[in-house]
Amino acid sequence: MFEVAKVGHRVDKQAFKAQRDALRVELLEAQRALRDSQIPVIVIVAGVEAAGKGEVVNRLNEWLDTRGVQTFAFWESSDEERERPRYWRFWRALPPRGEIAILFGGWYLAPIEERFGGVCDDAALDAELRRITDFERSLTLDGALVVKFWFHLSEADQKKRLKQLSGDPRSRWRMRPKKAKFSAQYQRFEAVAERVIRRTDSGLAPWYLIEAADRRYRDLTVGQTLLQAIRNRLQQPFPPESAAAPPSLDPPDSTSAPTSRLGQLDLTQTLEREAYKQALKRYQRELNELAWQAYKSRRSTVLVFEGVDAGGKGGAIRRLAQALDARLYRTIPIAAPTDEERAHHYLWRFWRQLPRAGHIIIYDRSWYGRVLVERVEGFASEPEWRRAYAEINDFEEQLAENGSILLKFWLHVSEEEQLRRFRERENTPHKQYKITDEDWRNREQWPLYKDAVDEMITSTSTEYAPWTLVEGDDKRFARIKVLQTVCDRLRAALGEG
Amino acid sequence: MFEVAKVGHRVDKQAFKAQRDALRVELLEAQRALRDSQIPVIVIVAGVEAAGKGEVVNRLNEWLDTRGVQTFAFWESSDEERERPRYWRFWRALPPRGEIAILFGGWYLAPIEERFGGVCDDAALDAELRRITDFERSLTLDGALVVKFWFHLSEADQKKRLKQLSGDPRSRWRMRPKKAKFSAQYQRFEAVAERVIRRTDSGLAPWYLIEAADRRYRDLTVGQTLLQAIRNRLQQPFPPESAAAPPSLDPPDSTSAPTSRLGQLDLTQTLEREAYKQALKRYQRELNELAWQAYKSRRSTVLVFEGVDAGGKGGAIRRLAQALDARLYRTIPIAAPTDEERAHHYLWRFWRQLPRAGHIIIYDRSWYGRVLVERVEGFASEPEWRRAYAEINDFEEQLAENGSILLKFWLHVSEEEQLRRFRERENTPHKQYKITDEDWRNREQWPLYKDAVDEMITSTSTEYAPWTLVEGDDKRFARIKVLQTVCDRLRAALGEG
Repeated sequence: MFEVAKVGHRVDKQAFKAQRDALRVELLEAQRALRDSQIPVIVIVAGVEAAGKGEVVNRLNEWLDTRGVQTFAFWESSDEERERPRYWRFWRALPPRGEIAILFGGWYLAPIEERFGGVCDDAALDAELRRITDFERSLTLDGALVVKFWFHLSEADQKKRLKQLSGDPRSRWRMRPKKAKFSAQYQRFEAVAERVIRRTDSGLAPWYLIEAADRRYRDLTVGQTLLQAIRNRLQQPFPPESAAAPPSLDPPDSTSAPTSRLGQLDLTQTLEREAYKQALKRYQRELNELAWQAYKSRRSTVLVFEGVDAGGKGGAIRRLAQALDARLYRTIPIAAPTDEERAHHYLWRFWRQLPRAGHIIIYDRSWYGRVLVERVEGFASEPEWRRAYAEINDFEEQLAENGSILLKFWLHVSEEEQLRRFRERENTPHKQYKITDEDWRNREQWPLYKDAVDEMITSTSTEYAPWTLVEGDDKRFARIKVLQTVCDRLRAALGEG
Repeated sequence: MFEVAKVGHRVDKQAFKAQRDALRVELLEAQRALRDSQIPVIVIVAGVEAAGKGEVVNRLNEWLDTRGVQTFAFWESSDEERERPRYWRFWRALPPRGEIAILFGGWYLAPIEERFGGVCDDAALDAELRRITDFERSLTLDGALVVKFWFHLSEADQKKRLKQLSGDPRSRWRMRPKKAKFSAQYQRFEAVAERVIRRTDSGLAPWYLIEAADRRYRDLTVGQTLLQAIRNRLQQPFPPESAAAPPSLDPPDSTSAPTSRLGQLDLTQTLEREAYKQALKRYQRELNELAWQAYKSRRSTVLVFEGVDAGGKGGAIRRLAQALDARLYRTIPIAAPTDEERAHHYLWRFWRQLPRAGHIIIYDRSWYGRVLVERVEGFASEPEWRRAYAEINDFEEQLAENGSILLKFWLHVSEEEQLRRFRERENTPHKQYKITDEDWRNREQWPLYKDAVDEMITSTSTEYAPWTLVEGDDKRFARIKVLQTVCDRLRAALGEG
């Protein structure tokens, strides 16, 4: 695979200057066009030790307008990063639409290092590479341009380069972990690199192998490749509808769906007043203790509430919050995205909000908006919400892998009960603000929502993040069911240790 | 002072329930009105050990709609927080307009603890309290409502309460630092508290002393006080123009100002080509080394560039960036604020962008926009930009105290040279995008800008953050002056150790 990168291209000084000057003007122009477009650009700079990745990145920063470029190295991790899933730091690095982010290694660094170091085997590496592929597909289908450069040196060239570096006083104090190890293991590294590149090279996010032996050739090629990639992307329609088939999950055909889970709910269940008061006291006390236990065990909890309007989300959340120490939780109401959030992938804002270890985050509406209101109202196209199920499952899986405890609640009421509550709000002065035209409109759309909800539950109910359907006609019953479910789940999760 | 809080108020269960229910409805209504207003609310909860601050905060979260409230405790500090000035974490906690933030102790915690623990003396405490007063004034004049509660217990009540807590299994594992110490030092603590409250009690941000012995009385009083404070604030005009006099700095009267600093610049200075190339090479190499040194010493550098349009900011920044490793710096172009930024104090976005220790941040335009374009175009009222000088000096002082190295550059060109550059841009195809109507308009406004610039330089040139005026007619001269100044400053700062 790397033979193509050992051809021995060279560029002399004169030719370099001429081409570089032209390239600079064109890159700046392309960057301006980018700014006007909706396209975020992610450049991954990876490759063998001593290939000069730092030099290349500095060169790019010189040629581009640095005001629209940000560079990220992932040397040092902060404790805030360590307390969150591994990809949190990468999501933070994603550029807003129209800007460029250059990542040293990015999400390739750790898998390569771990496989090379023997910390994981090929099977584990492949699993991580599948995650990378899904992640890059999600970004590119959302409109991003992902450009990946692999810088290669022959064994002889690398040896020569490393020798030069060790002699340079300035490089000695640069952070270069495990240099001796890499150079001594050239062959092994090449094997790992080949596996990684082969499995993550795709039409949407291709790898470009760059021969790094001659600096001028290397830098010019990178600049020209990046320029071409940007120009090609600018010419494509947005969003890239014609791109790769939607990922693994087969969405069920709603006409042949099994009986709707919602239809199976027995909404007549009630809980009488005295039993409610007893249960409320008991579960709130238990929840308070479990929350402190989770805090001490550094286990985060993510609670998601979705449901029909007037379904009781607010009331259920309040009974949870009442039981919790204010320092341990945060309630986040999800509504229309801000400018900054719209400039990113729809999941970006949720990644950003992930709490530090041991805290609880309660979502009043959530990322499921993608497959609910955005589907029904057409804010998201069909390819977009269809692929959202897998994107959401992957997001939640990463949270779970990081030790988070996830619960998702759909609060449901019958159409009659909903109408009754709507009327009650309209007729009660201090509750009138709660009922809007949008609520009535959503009610009319119920048949469409019903299909969306059924599909959502089927497609995203996983072992690590199950859906709990809550019979909401009786408020007391609903609140206790929510409290009890949260307690049971926390108890089980913390009990495991 | 605290006698008023030892009266022995009590509220019985019946009365509590009745008042609480009414209070809840009114608080929710006030909160809704807040949401529609432009008013952020900051609630500080402070007081003696065991007064039940946690209970009060939980109660407030119960009574308010938690979706518009966020609670912050400052128990644990992350390394990201430790690498930045102390107030960074408080600026991060500031709520957007229309929302409420409840802070346990907030910026009072550390000063009180340090004085009580003998880590600092009265003089140091007073200096910190003056900073707090300036900070709170800055927030309130910007429109925020700052409500400060001090919860008090008599010595006997505190002793009783602490005994109860030590017997409660749940409280044993709550993080309660130095409990024995505080209770044993009741008198000393009361003296510190009295000093703090007296010096930071102001018309704009008053302290409310709350007797905490009876829980129901305590909670009702907090709720009612907060409600009243919100209502009063909602009735005031915004911004509070009639509020306290502008802070300490006397802005110079421009008609009697000494000869303008700008007028004294010798714009005929040039640097010929060969000397330029030598100097460029030399200073860029030196800067590269100094930047790595700063990184290793964990000293951050903040470079601010302001100047007339076509003054050469971009070119100067590029010559700096060329010399730096991309991993160590970031260039931030400052333009109109985003929605999220507009929902906060104008300095909030700059606090948020502060880099981790050892990194360099280059501002292409900056917070000085407040006293330049916002002053000239009227985006900021006169009281607002007049008080900005002191706010900016305080901000920069905090950066300097934290070890950051600050430099501010004003790049200046003569009116003739500016006209020449404008014409050149208009006539060069790939530079045309650089010239806009706004540039021509700003040029017409130059007399107003001149006054603004002169006043800015006079009012904000400090020892820790000096202004450097750069004679920009000759681009080569300007770039070397910038590079040399940065190198000299870094060398001096790092040399000090």
